[in-house]
Amino acid sequence: MTQSQGDGPSRRALIGWGGAGLALGAAAAGGAVAVTRGGEDSGPPDAGAGAAVAFHGPHQAGIATPVQDRLHFAAFDVTTTDRAEFVRLLKDWTDAARRMTAGKAVGEGAFGGLPEAPPDDTGEALGLKPSRLTLTVGFGPSLFRKFGLDARRPDALIDLPRFAGDALDATRSDGDLCVQACADDPQVAVHAIRNLARIGMGKVVIRWSQLGFGKTSSTTPDAQTPRNLMGFKDGTRNIAGTETGRLEKFVWVGEKDGPAWMTGGSYLVARRIRMHIETWDRTSLQEQEDIFGRDKGEGAPVGKAKERDEPFLKAMLPDAHVRLAHPDSNGGATLLRRGYSFTDGTDGLGRLEAGLFFLAYQRDVREGFVRVQRNLATDALNEYIQHVGSAVFAIPPGVRDQDDWWGRTLFSEEA
Amino acid sequence: MTQSQGDGPSRRALIGWGGAGLALGAAAAGGAVAVTRGGEDSGPPDAGAGAAVAFHGPHQAGIATPVQDRLHFAAFDVTTTDRAEFVRLLKDWTDAARRMTAGKAVGEGAFGGLPEAPPDDTGEALGLKPSRLTLTVGFGPSLFRKFGLDARRPDALIDLPRFAGDALDATRSDGDLCVQACADDPQVAVHAIRNLARIGMGKVVIRWSQLGFGKTSSTTPDAQTPRNLMGFKDGTRNIAGTETGRLEKFVWVGEKDGPAWMTGGSYLVARRIRMHIETWDRTSLQEQEDIFGRDKGEGAPVGKAKERDEPFLKAMLPDAHVRLAHPDSNGGATLLRRGYSFTDGTDGLGRLEAGLFFLAYQRDVREGFVRVQRNLATDALNEYIQHVGSAVFAIPPGVRDQDDWWGRTLFSEEA
Repeated sequence: MTQSQGDGPSRRALIGWGGAGLALGAAAAGGAVAVTRGGEDSGPPDAGAGAAVAFHGPHQAGIATPVQDRLHFAAFDVTTTDRAEFVRLLKDWTDAARRMTAGKAVGEGAFGGLPEAPPDDTGEALGLKPSRLTLTVGFGPSLFRKFGLDARRPDALIDLPRFAGDALDATRSDGDLCVQACADDPQVAVHAIRNLARIGMGKVVIRWSQLGFGKTSSTTPDAQTPRNLMGFKDGTRNIAGTETGRLEKFVWVGEKDGPAWMTGGSYLVARRIRMHIETWDRTSLQEQEDIFGRDKGEGAPVGKAKERDEPFLKAMLPDAHVRLAHPDSNGGATLLRRGYSFTDGTDGLGRLEAGLFFLAYQRDVREGFVRVQRNLATDALNEYIQHVGSAVFAIPPGVRDQDDWWGRTLFSEEA
Repeated sequence: MTQSQGDGPSRRALIGWGGAGLALGAAAAGGAVAVTRGGEDSGPPDAGAGAAVAFHGPHQAGIATPVQDRLHFAAFDVTTTDRAEFVRLLKDWTDAARRMTAGKAVGEGAFGGLPEAPPDDTGEALGLKPSRLTLTVGFGPSLFRKFGLDARRPDALIDLPRFAGDALDATRSDGDLCVQACADDPQVAVHAIRNLARIGMGKVVIRWSQLGFGKTSSTTPDAQTPRNLMGFKDGTRNIAGTETGRLEKFVWVGEKDGPAWMTGGSYLVARRIRMHIETWDRTSLQEQEDIFGRDKGEGAPVGKAKERDEPFLKAMLPDAHVRLAHPDSNGGATLLRRGYSFTDGTDGLGRLEAGLFFLAYQRDVREGFVRVQRNLATDALNEYIQHVGSAVFAIPPGVRDQDDWWGRTLFSEEA
């Protein structure tokens, strides 16, 4: 058996399986190297696509972490009504997430143990690097109802109101739980969600899921801003993972915000936004630029030369997207965006079923997404897009150490 | 405007747009550098994910080319009945494919021309590298009927028979035309299909399409063999892009095979194979290995130590997959496989809609896929998979030079 080349230990090198004599001690040491290489939020963007992101910390990884290239997102419904069983699942999930984000297979010794049992790990990520995998868990409003936790439900976690133009599909909306898997290798992200679903069999079931093939926002200010499927740069003024002040102000739930169990957490709004690609593609360049309020090539705001020049909102049309979405038009409201482009085949009419899977983190949903989305009711872009899926989740704080687990502050303090 | 870092010119650097003063001569030179860097089939695997693959050659790229990481595949129906209009489309597509595979935007000068017109290029690949994009075109049986070309239809391009276990969905099957887009960056592959669809508006319409997030086979013998979603290595004994002898014998249509217009071409069978992931995941390791005829960790054939050891078929169960698919069990039949894993959300029952999008190239469909698939009727794997989509295409020879175009040997020699 050969060690993998390049940075980060390979998943395959981390298991002592297949008759090879890799010492377990060496494998453990390799895992540690990977984790220290890519520190949460603080790892340099050039740490390499193969590195591991630290799992433990005051905040969950996958929010301020530099945005990875690929996404697999799943919303689950909880089918068990047994709270203790659900808590056991959260602990099992945490163990599995801790291993997978470090580039290890699920289960001790991977599937080397008993040939007569199903493998602990489904195996398709063996040999792949940690790939900056992050797993971020969230709790939907319906989970609080299901477990009689309404008194602990944060005020900031509202049921989203209906917005102008919404055409929501119930089978692509809501969910008791969510897991956001982001990685630079899509096979690693898909593997992670699949293994969590497998571990949850009989207790949770996937309600809907979404693959994202390309990031549309960056949280690293020096990186090239990605383009969405309308061809425009997206996320130019996004909150960077290094901007501690803006993160505290707009993203992380503070001690004074309450409830206490959410301190260090955040709130996630997920929206599946279908783009009417073919209509957009027949629109003139001038109209496209007027609608966005930026030019298409450079991404400069109307009347400015460079992408990062300060926008002059009054130079834009009143219904320009950038103008309506800007914090100055929304009482300062600012979201940390982490969306991905998707293409899910064709819609039966020969049109690409494609668009933006919008993910936004915020300190309070009422002061964040709701405010901005209400203001976008007159957005010129609305002619070319439609919101077809919607969900909102409370993102609990990070897992502090080896003994901690996802949701402990919610489920054990009350007990 | 800054030039991109790393290997290969960026798409953005190749257009003189956005008020930047990049000389067109320099851009053209940059394009040439990219093309010479990654020669078709002969480029070293370490040429870098950003490099360009040559578009011109005796064979189309995307067959013997080292397999790229991501796929976007589209089948089209032709809506025009005007043969001259269809030929013009093939020429327009060829021009666009020539530019996009070199990392350039569609259209001369990209969307710099007229603000009152829709842009020539949809823009979402600006700034991205060529990413080893290949575009491979194919003609389905129905195309020959549509244009009265039955006399020129190759005998080797049969309508596929029905196979045991087939559960084909007509909306995921067949098509007059196909385009296989492979690239190391999925946004580049998606961009290419979308722009071809846009150019074809009013003449062709997408019938179905498929995104593949991870390759399951490799055509480079030294690379690590990828794993499919069952966790097993897939494609260990695949034909390598450097094996000229096996390519001539099993993949490329020869002069004596006929018809003359197909010399240098190939035949493609595409099958969407749904995997019953959740059932598979509950199967014991021993049973999984018995079904495949290889061990899961190393990939060694039953009774052997290493992945590439020669399989001893009689050591395997009679219905083991590797045994039944092996050339020795099929009169020597050998396919060049180029499949991709897919995950398209959930099936409404909480199960992942996931599996293998199987792509196989061969010199004669009757001697290739049909023979092997018939023999797989008793495959133990069939309990865990189902073929739900199917299509077959004649892949014409490569575009020779700047004046040549996709399908010329079929559509102009007759004229």
